[in-house]
Amino acid sequence: MAPVVGGGVAGETFHKVNFAAPRSFAAAFKSDLKETLFPDDPFHDFKGKPLPIKAKKALQYFVPIFEWLPKYTRKLFMYDLLAGITIASLAIPQGISYAKLANIPPIIGLYSSFVPPLIYSVFGSSKHLAVGTVAASSLIIAATIEAKVNPIENPQLYLNLVFTATLISGVTQLILGVFRLGILVDFLSHSTITGFMGGTATLICLQQLKGIFGLKHFTTHTDMVSVIRVILKNRKEIRWESTVVGVVFLVFLQFTRFVKQKKPKLFWVSAIAPMVVVVTGCVFAYVAHVEKHGIAIVGDLKKGINPSSLKNLDFDPKYLSAPIQAGLVTAMIALAEGIAIGRSFAIMENQQIDGNKEMIAFGLMNIIGSFTSCYLTTGPFSKTAVNYNAGCKTQMANVVMSICMMLTLFFLAPLFSYTPLVALSAIIMSAMLGLIEYDKAYHLYKTDKFDFIICMAAFFGVAFISMDVGLMLSVGLALLRALLYVARPASSKLGNIPDTSVYRDMEQYPGAIDIPKTLILQLGSPIYFANSGYLRERILRWVRDEQAKKASEGDDVEHVILDFGGVTSIDITGVETLVEIRRSLEVKDIKVVIVNPRLEVMEKLIVTKFIDKIGKERVFLSIEDAIEGCNFSLTHQKDCGSEER
Amino acid sequence: MAPVVGGGVAGETFHKVNFAAPRSFAAAFKSDLKETLFPDDPFHDFKGKPLPIKAKKALQYFVPIFEWLPKYTRKLFMYDLLAGITIASLAIPQGISYAKLANIPPIIGLYSSFVPPLIYSVFGSSKHLAVGTVAASSLIIAATIEAKVNPIENPQLYLNLVFTATLISGVTQLILGVFRLGILVDFLSHSTITGFMGGTATLICLQQLKGIFGLKHFTTHTDMVSVIRVILKNRKEIRWESTVVGVVFLVFLQFTRFVKQKKPKLFWVSAIAPMVVVVTGCVFAYVAHVEKHGIAIVGDLKKGINPSSLKNLDFDPKYLSAPIQAGLVTAMIALAEGIAIGRSFAIMENQQIDGNKEMIAFGLMNIIGSFTSCYLTTGPFSKTAVNYNAGCKTQMANVVMSICMMLTLFFLAPLFSYTPLVALSAIIMSAMLGLIEYDKAYHLYKTDKFDFIICMAAFFGVAFISMDVGLMLSVGLALLRALLYVARPASSKLGNIPDTSVYRDMEQYPGAIDIPKTLILQLGSPIYFANSGYLRERILRWVRDEQAKKASEGDDVEHVILDFGGVTSIDITGVETLVEIRRSLEVKDIKVVIVNPRLEVMEKLIVTKFIDKIGKERVFLSIEDAIEGCNFSLTHQKDCGSEER
Repeated sequence: MAPVVGGGVAGETFHKVNFAAPRSFAAAFKSDLKETLFPDDPFHDFKGKPLPIKAKKALQYFVPIFEWLPKYTRKLFMYDLLAGITIASLAIPQGISYAKLANIPPIIGLYSSFVPPLIYSVFGSSKHLAVGTVAASSLIIAATIEAKVNPIENPQLYLNLVFTATLISGVTQLILGVFRLGILVDFLSHSTITGFMGGTATLICLQQLKGIFGLKHFTTHTDMVSVIRVILKNRKEIRWESTVVGVVFLVFLQFTRFVKQKKPKLFWVSAIAPMVVVVTGCVFAYVAHVEKHGIAIVGDLKKGINPSSLKNLDFDPKYLSAPIQAGLVTAMIALAEGIAIGRSFAIMENQQIDGNKEMIAFGLMNIIGSFTSCYLTTGPFSKTAVNYNAGCKTQMANVVMSICMMLTLFFLAPLFSYTPLVALSAIIMSAMLGLIEYDKAYHLYKTDKFDFIICMAAFFGVAFISMDVGLMLSVGLALLRALLYVARPASSKLGNIPDTSVYRDMEQYPGAIDIPKTLILQLGSPIYFANSGYLRERILRWVRDEQAKKASEGDDVEHVILDFGGVTSIDITGVETLVEIRRSLEVKDIKVVIVNPRLEVMEKLIVTKFIDKIGKERVFLSIEDAIEGCNFSLTHQKDCGSEER
Repeated sequence: MAPVVGGGVAGETFHKVNFAAPRSFAAAFKSDLKETLFPDDPFHDFKGKPLPIKAKKALQYFVPIFEWLPKYTRKLFMYDLLAGITIASLAIPQGISYAKLANIPPIIGLYSSFVPPLIYSVFGSSKHLAVGTVAASSLIIAATIEAKVNPIENPQLYLNLVFTATLISGVTQLILGVFRLGILVDFLSHSTITGFMGGTATLICLQQLKGIFGLKHFTTHTDMVSVIRVILKNRKEIRWESTVVGVVFLVFLQFTRFVKQKKPKLFWVSAIAPMVVVVTGCVFAYVAHVEKHGIAIVGDLKKGINPSSLKNLDFDPKYLSAPIQAGLVTAMIALAEGIAIGRSFAIMENQQIDGNKEMIAFGLMNIIGSFTSCYLTTGPFSKTAVNYNAGCKTQMANVVMSICMMLTLFFLAPLFSYTPLVALSAIIMSAMLGLIEYDKAYHLYKTDKFDFIICMAAFFGVAFISMDVGLMLSVGLALLRALLYVARPASSKLGNIPDTSVYRDMEQYPGAIDIPKTLILQLGSPIYFANSGYLRERILRWVRDEQAKKASEGDDVEHVILDFGGVTSIDITGVETLVEIRRSLEVKDIKVVIVNPRLEVMEKLIVTKFIDKIGKERVFLSIEDAIEGCNFSLTHQKDCGSEER
């Protein structure tokens, strides 16, 4: 860092402003790139360590199992064993249900809880995340691929495209992680996710009415209107037997949730409830031959673990657009869900989760999953919460779940073929009802109307148009707001808080005192092309208003002090605008003074020669100095600055 | 404004923070809307005036001719007369040339300098803007509509679509103006416009080689590669006679520009040069029968003023996409060019230009133009500069030009039919060479590499792909930068400047002093969904680094003071992130203190109950107060705050 140079009208009276030469472009670029892609500085531990330790640390960083497995103890395993068995009991019904939601054979759902958790336990960095299939992604895959291929007429092609979509999703996640583009996930705001989840959950609930009512004909459209219309049209197909069983199961599941809410210690009641429903359903179906009464069962679950699906991957250009679309959308959604959930639980335990590393783990598990007859997996909220509550300590819980699933696939799979579809519908519906967060939406409404609109755009977009339209609408609105934030930055007039050297917004602090002959403006946010036109208008308006106000008091404006403390950066258009503002004000005999430019802004002002133009004596470290400086120039050098006009 | 309430650990020791109740949603929304759409507060003169005066002022506001005409004097007219005749002499060659560029009959170019200037003189608010056709928009219209209809095979349909595009462009501009969406034009940065103009000028220059070389065959593609390829392919068609004449004219025109640059007082030399070229060309063509030597002439210019083109407007859905695309793109480009130019000259004279009002004037002139056989007009830079230099005083100069054009159309049009095409090509080329701003690009390179990249993206995109791709690429990059500004806001560690109560960035002011047991962080820009994840990581990293640094000095971090002075707004995700940060830090026994939240941020923190959560005694007006407060709690209440954890 170069030494501090010059500054101040009368050198010694004022505190020195740093006019050091700007950093080189390479230095500034490197620092910007680091902030953009490595905000968490993952390699801060590496500095000054010898090479073998660096290599070991790097291995532990990229493959977390090398970090936790050496420290693993028998005691930790007891916790993980219990948690693993618990989540396996959830994985079986969820696997079958969500596979049904995606219109693929139920056994694929079970396969998907075997391989991916193993991969995650090697590469994943979250201790609590339980890997599995999720409803939202299952529905998106189904909706997108159904548009190209009918899953009933051409089930094999449909399944192949689902595997292809999974591969594309995994590759996307891997690429995002490797290039550290976790920043993209940041653009899915909480409000968007709340609305999107709510909308998707509503759709899925409606779709489950097919199972609950035991309907034979249904629509491949996913929007609310089509689904309600098809139910009304086929209302004569509704089977009361199925409906009764479904409602009973649903009431039971909702009751266990209610119990959990009232007594969080009884969380296991709601955790095992889906398994209870499935087992009860199977027994009931086996004993009562329910198929004869219009209650369909899953049917045909082959014994044995995942076959290879390498040859199933289908890149036929005729259909490729569907898996690409499904893959890209689900990659983002799955990441947003998985990372947000992993992060939430990590925060509870005061641990750090690296979003980019999680992306790599998710990407690898989906790539390998697509080769071994699995479809898209991520970290579902329900399973992860159960895992955490069941006391899991490390990623070993996923390994335990994986082994349980393997045993199930080898020995128990045929038993589950008696599962009534209506039981699965009830399980899905119950899970979905928990995802519609009325409270959160109401909270948004009360606290931030624009966030509420973003949330509702996602909800209604998903419910009435389609999932991607809803998502894009909501993200678009959120981006619009982001752009408006930068296009219309706040500025305020400052006044002196009595008996202090502090200057604050006069609207916020009505007691603050005006400074004679001076207008102090605080700017915020970067100044650049998108807001420089606005800022010019706004500053000139501030000046005009202040002139009118001061004129009515027999005073006038001779100095405009611009507080740059809140200006984080500036571009060429911004600097040109400053030049214009200065010119416009000097015509009115008003001098512009700048206070406290930040490092990056100062660099740009020096390199564009703006500082030379206004003169170093017009740049101050604090508002107090600036006011003193202005008074000094008013009394001692009435015409100071006129020579440079 | 509600009264100032509470604050400070020990009430009287500290300055009071304003915890006033938030404004209502309606009040905040109204204020935001006003800042977004009416940043210049156009009606500030109206307050408290009686209705008739308000009505008169409104009329004068919306139809500026009512403001300037009543004050008009004979002396002003003498200035405007001279300026009007001068720009008319420029309008004739430019009108014919640019019409040729747009592949429409040359007479349309003359028509376009008759009606639109009249409309602008009524509704326009710039005193210096001279209305006319421009090269960039002419080329865009040609490129877009040629893609649908061949102008040589089907000239009438092509012309009709050009009128339709003009109408769509006018309607777009009118709508943007009425809804005060001038903000959209803000998103075209100076860098984008520099690159776009340079790229377009390069393309147009290359295209003029057709005229200079006297080629008969050419391409309808506009990209550089196609144009160069077709010239090389048809090199045997090159006529030396045409080339010699073209080069002579071009050298003459460039020489007059050079004269103007060296002696700005001789600006009229370059102003009348195009007219000299056209007249010389006509005489030469008439005397030497140049057609026989391979030098084509304009041919066939009918006497008489604009016929109606109402029946020509063509909304056939088969072709409609082309005029819509051309209309939307040219509307934006023409606005950006016209408003920027009007504004530049207004600033020189210290006048205000209302971009939204200009949009309405441009919109009306293009709508009415499309009904009277005119194509797209705006305020071209060359003509406006000549108008200003010729001493124009009001919009009357446009009226004078309009009358000159009318006289030309009635009496002189046939004379111009001898104009050699090569003369027009030379005029266009010369104008274009002036639009390639090497200096500006070099300045960008020296001062802001990212702005340079934005500029080059527009330049190379336009030159090698197509105009809309180039424009979108460049605007996309600029928006990406805008989003990165908000996604990765600057934060810095503050230290005390010795002997003051001022706290500044310790990187910028290496002399600033660390505070024991305390870390002071300055945040900038809004905190919201797109950057809250980053800010959490960054703040935790600051804390980690500071802990390491302080530990090496035998100290530790007990308080983190967040300076919110630069935070202009916050959304729900941002508030949730603050809650998370606070939780993470409290686990490490570090207390979070907030300094100087702005009005809007304070409202959001109150309504979301964040202030209640951290306690009002943790919010301070200034960093100095906060440090005193922290020391106070360290010495007097060792465990202060632990009860609320």
